[in-house]
This record gives sequence, structure tokens and C-alpha cells, in this order.
Amino acid sequence: MASQVIREWVGFQQFPSATQSKLLELIRKSKQERRNTLTVLVMGKGGVGKSSTVNSILGERAVTVSAFQSEIPRPVMVSRSWEEFTLNIIDTPGLVEGGYVNDQVLDLIKRFLLNNTIDVLLYVDRLDSYRVDNLDRQVVKAITDSFGKEIWRRGLVVLTHAQVSPPDGLRYDEFTSRRSEAVLKIVRLGARIRKQEVKASSIPVVCVENSGRCNKNELDEKILPNGTAWIPSLLQTITDVVLSESNGILVDQKLIEGPNPNNKGKLLIPLISAFQYLFVVKRIQKWIKNDIARESRPSWA
Amino acid sequence: MASQVIREWVGFQQFPSATQSKLLELIRKSKQERRNTLTVLVMGKGGVGKSSTVNSILGERAVTVSAFQSEIPRPVMVSRSWEEFTLNIIDTPGLVEGGYVNDQVLDLIKRFLLNNTIDVLLYVDRLDSYRVDNLDRQVVKAITDSFGKEIWRRGLVVLTHAQVSPPDGLRYDEFTSRRSEAVLKIVRLGARIRKQEVKASSIPVVCVENSGRCNKNELDEKILPNGTAWIPSLLQTITDVVLSESNGILVDQKLIEGPNPNNKGKLLIPLISAFQYLFVVKRIQKWIKNDIARESRPSWA
Ligand SMILES: Nc1nc2c(ncn2[C@@H]2O[C@H](COP(=O)(O)OP(=O)(O)OP(=O)(O)O)[C@@H](O)[C@H]2O)c(=O)[nH]1
Ligand SMILES: Nc1nc2c(ncn2[C@@H]2O[C@H](COP(=O)(O)OP(=O)(O)OP(=O)(O)O)[C@@H](O)[C@H]2O)c(=O)[nH]1
Ligand SMILES: [Mg+2]
Ligand SMILES: [Mg+2]
Repeated sequence: MASQVIREWVGFQQFPSATQSKLLELIRKSKQERRNTLTVLVMGKGGVGKSSTVNSILGERAVTVSAFQSEIPRPVMVSRSWEEFTLNIIDTPGLVEGGYVNDQVLDLIKRFLLNNTIDVLLYVDRLDSYRVDNLDRQVVKAITDSFGKEIWRRGLVVLTHAQVSPPDGLRYDEFTSRRSEAVLKIVRLGARIRKQEVKASSIPVVCVENSGRCNKNELDEKILPNGTAWIPSLLQTITDVVLSESNGILVDQKLIEGPNPNNKGKLLIPLISAFQYLFVVKRIQKWIKNDIARESRPSWA
Repeated sequence: MASQVIREWVGFQQFPSATQSKLLELIRKSKQERRNTLTVLVMGKGGVGKSSTVNSILGERAVTVSAFQSEIPRPVMVSRSWEEFTLNIIDTPGLVEGGYVNDQVLDLIKRFLLNNTIDVLLYVDRLDSYRVDNLDRQVVKAITDSFGKEIWRRGLVVLTHAQVSPPDGLRYDEFTSRRSEAVLKIVRLGARIRKQEVKASSIPVVCVENSGRCNKNELDEKILPNGTAWIPSLLQTITDVVLSESNGILVDQKLIEGPNPNNKGKLLIPLISAFQYLFVVKRIQKWIKNDIARESRPSWA
């Protein structure tokens, strides 16, 4: 049995101890709430480090990362089990191409998730980007339109490339907090979170550094320039979100068809649905089966 | 006289010697070609480091840089003189907003340049961006439509943030050359440079690091991780472009009105022109006067 588990999540064992205990805490607390699986959805623009973050959380090279071009054309689910608890992470393609939000990718993600519950959303962007603009807001709006505003109660903002020297004249913590505020502001706008709601649904921000060159502390934990061991800190934040009062987002047929009045071609939905069931859903089910089959051997080998 | 010159370009004197000699070489060779001024236009997306690059070239904090939001709403010209030679650099606002190329900004830049010749175009992007996409191509296309394809014979690609650790598994030079190729490919597509033209009109790429934390060599020159003293190298490349066979781009009324058949509202141009002359051109002339006036005191003081 033990060897079975070990084969299933090679990365777990290789994590340093603080990370392992945070993972065990996440598992224990989830089980207390009678949850044996946790599903984490990872979304954001292209090249910001979504796949790298998935690999960092798993401690394995489970999904493909590239320095030059987008690799995954469709959502990919990676599952790892430990002590009869299963962590599912869904890596997704970048949501923006040529200045537009790619609605087809969002649609694909929704269909991929059919009948699953999203427990946590990681909205990924770079810490070391120096501008936010209306396109970021549109990305958040598109996510909100697809999954409902409630998804942000399950959301956290992940800022990658956190091992960065702050711009001249700023301290590191000053830089991270101002950048966090700028991203959060856009998220609130895109998600239409009103002023009076901000406190109740405050969205946490976590900085991460996925590079193999990330500095480590004496306990072998990867740390940020301010000393934070970021993987334990990310896991803690995920645990907080899981234990929060809000509910996960069930992606059912209704959500896929969308209560969103802006959806185009609404009248055709029943027809399209039948068509899609035959062609799209079937294909996606095959993908998931493949993902799981492929994943039973470590894919990074 | 000397003190006059010194007041005019404080940064010159403060440059280390290799940078100074490259600047003097640029000046001497330009003068040999009977040119007493050089006009460098700096363009690119928002937040990529255009203003920082302008400051690096001048060795002064001449234009405003911000870590969080765009600062300049319009083109700004900075002029510095040395040995009766004048270097004009035009810093411009980011060309993209909300996923679109901002045609108004481009139009403003053209009008700002009326009756000036662009000797060199610096097209700025980040080295540590991990994707190119159709939006980048559109930016290049918009520049090409505005100034003509010939501007790329006067163009060089500047990649900022060059003091970066390459992604895991790549050597630094491998990373920079693959990223350069990716950007050049998009530039060629956007500028409609055909395969058989590539060799004749090869566009140089220069990596730069504007941060105050840039490493230096024993001669006090800022260097990249591969040891290149990048300011001299950038100045050398600018000199090569200046001395190349191609001509600078004269921005005359004809260019502003555009031979580009895609221009909208063509029939209204005479009317619009008259209107613009009264309101826009006058205002721009005032700006330029202000820039020059403001610049006579060092603006970073
Ligand atoms: N230094 C550093 N590099 C990172 C980090 N995260 C990702 N990268 C690098 O950024 C590049 C793109 O990373 P990916 O993880 O493939 O990005 P992505 O968001 O999955 O990209 P798409 O799937 O194309 O949307 C790769 O070269 C990574 O090595 C980080 O935190 N720090
Ligand atoms: N580390 C590093 N930071 C840079 C570099 N170039 C610019 N920056 C930082 O990037 C941020 C934006 O730089 P700017 O020079 O204002 O960028 P810009 O292209 O002029 O921006 P807009 O005018 O808004 O389009 C600032 O925080 C700069 O300090 C660079 O080469 N290295
Ligand atoms: Mg990816
Ligand atoms: Mg600027």
C-alpha cells in the first residue's frame, strides 16, 4: 500500500518537511470536512507561469513548460493521491491571444470540468509585470461570466517571478504590495465586486518563484527575497480558502449553457448541446481518461 | 564654452570611458557624414522599459519611469548636445491599451515628428517575456503602416530586463538568441519583410539592462550576464545603423496623411488637416518648446 502511494505522488516525499506538513494539514483539515478530493483550477494569460506553478505545487514535472511557446492546446488534469486523499490540478491554456480573450478556450475549460466542483481557483499573473490594463480586466470578466462571480470567493491571485529585484528606489515588500493592489483592483473591477463587498470577499495574493534557481533557507524550503517559504505559504492560503464558508463551484450543464444573457446564439443551445455531447464531451472524456492513464506512469520520466 | 556643454549633458561626463568613446565615435562618424543631429525614436508596448532605456542612453533621469503606471500621455523629446552635435531622443507612450494598438498615440507621434527625420528607431520589448503573439505583430504592423516599411532599415530591436537568469535548462546566450529570433520573426511578419529580403534588411537586436542593480565590470561599465558592456554595444549598433546605406525617414505632411490605402475617412483628410493644424499642430509645437525649455534645466533635479 505504502509503495503504491509513493509511486503515485513521487514529489510529495521529496518536499522538505515544512512543505510536507502543510500538505498533510491541508489533507487532514479537508478530511475533517469530509472531503477526499480537492480540485484546483489554474487560469491566466499565456506564459505567466501557470504550468510551472502546477509543477511547483506537485513537486514534479507533471505538465509541460516552455520558455518560447505555448505548449498545451487544451486543459490537462493531473491527479496525485496521498493517504486516500486526491489532489486534482487542472492546468489550462493561456486565455489571451492577439489581444483578445479566447472564449473558445474558456468554453473548453468549462466543458472539461463538467460535473466537477472547483474548490480553488488560482488566477496567475507575473509579479514583475509593470502594467495592468483593460485586457486584464477583460480576462477576469470572462472568467466571471463563465463560472459566476462566486468563483472569486474560491479564488486566489498567484504572482510568479517573485524572486525579482524591486525597481530602483522601492523596497521588496513595498513593491509586492503595490503590485498586488494593482492586480486586485483589476480583479475586483473585472469580477464586479463592489466597494462594500471588498472586505467580505477579500481575495488573497501569494507570491511564488518557480525557477529552479529560487533561493532556499536552511531547511531546504524555497524562499522569496523577504525570507518567506512560499510553497508552505501557498498551501496555507489554499487551506484557508478550502475551509472558508463559501462553497465550491459545481460545473453543471446549466453553468455550461450559461445564465449569462450575453451568450450569443442562445436559441441554438439545445441543438448545439446535442451536437457537442456527441463530439466534444466524448472527446474530453477520452482526454481525461488519457490524462489519468498517462499520469499513472510519471509523465516527467 | 566647456561649462556650457557640461551643463547641457550632465550624463555624458559621468559615463565610464568605454561608453564615452563610443559616443564620441558616434558623433565623429556622424559629422563625417555631415550630420550634426541625430534623432532616435523609441517605441513599443507599455511598461517594457522605453523611458528607462532613454535614460540609460543619456546617463540621466531625463524622462519619467514608473513601476506601476504609464506616466507620459504624449511623446516627449529630450535633446542633449556635445561638441556641437545634438542627440534628440523621442520617448513615446505605450502603443497598446486593452489588447488594441492605440492608433491615436501613433498619430500623435507622427504629428509630433512633423518635418523631422527619424534616423534610428528603437523598437523595445522585454527579453524576459516568454510569448510573442499576434498583438506584437499588430504593433509592428501599425508602426510600418505609419512610417513605411523602410523604417525597419533604420530599426533595431532593444530587449530590456537582460540581467535575467535563463529558464531552467538553457544557457544565457541560447536563451537570448532564441528570444531574439522569436521577436525578429514577429517583426518581419508585421513589417511584411519577405524571406528574400531578410538578409539585406537584417535588423539588429541589442540586449539592455536598465536597472540600477545592473552588474558592472572593472571599468565601471554595466554588463550583461555574458559579460557584454551593453551601453557601448548599443551605441555601436546605433552607429552602424546611422552609417548604413539606407536613408532616415522624413516625416512630412504626406507621410502623416498617409499613402496607406487602409486609412479610414480618407476623403475628410483635407478638412481634418486644416482642423488639426489649428488645434493639434499648434499644441504640439508648444509642447516641444516646453520640452526644450524644461530640458535646459536638468529635469531630474
Ligand atoms: N524566473 C521564473 N521563471 C518562470 C516562473 N514561472 C514560469 N517561468 C518561466 O516562464 C516561462 C513560461 O512558463 P510556463 O509555466 O510555461 O507558463 P504558462 O503560463 O503555463 O504558459 P502557457 O501555457 O503558454 O499559457 C518558462 O520559461 C518558465 O520557466 C517563475 O516564477 N520565475
Ligand atoms: N530590472 C529591470 N527593470 C526595468 C528595465 N527597464 C525598465 N524597468 C522597470 O520597468 C518599469 C517600467 O519601465 P518604464 O521605463 O517606465 O517603461 P515604459 O516602456 O516607458 O512604460 P510606458 O511609458 O508606460 O509605456 C519600471 O519599474 C522600470 O524600473 C530593465 O531593463 N530591467
Ligand atoms: Mg502552460
Ligand atoms: Mg515610458
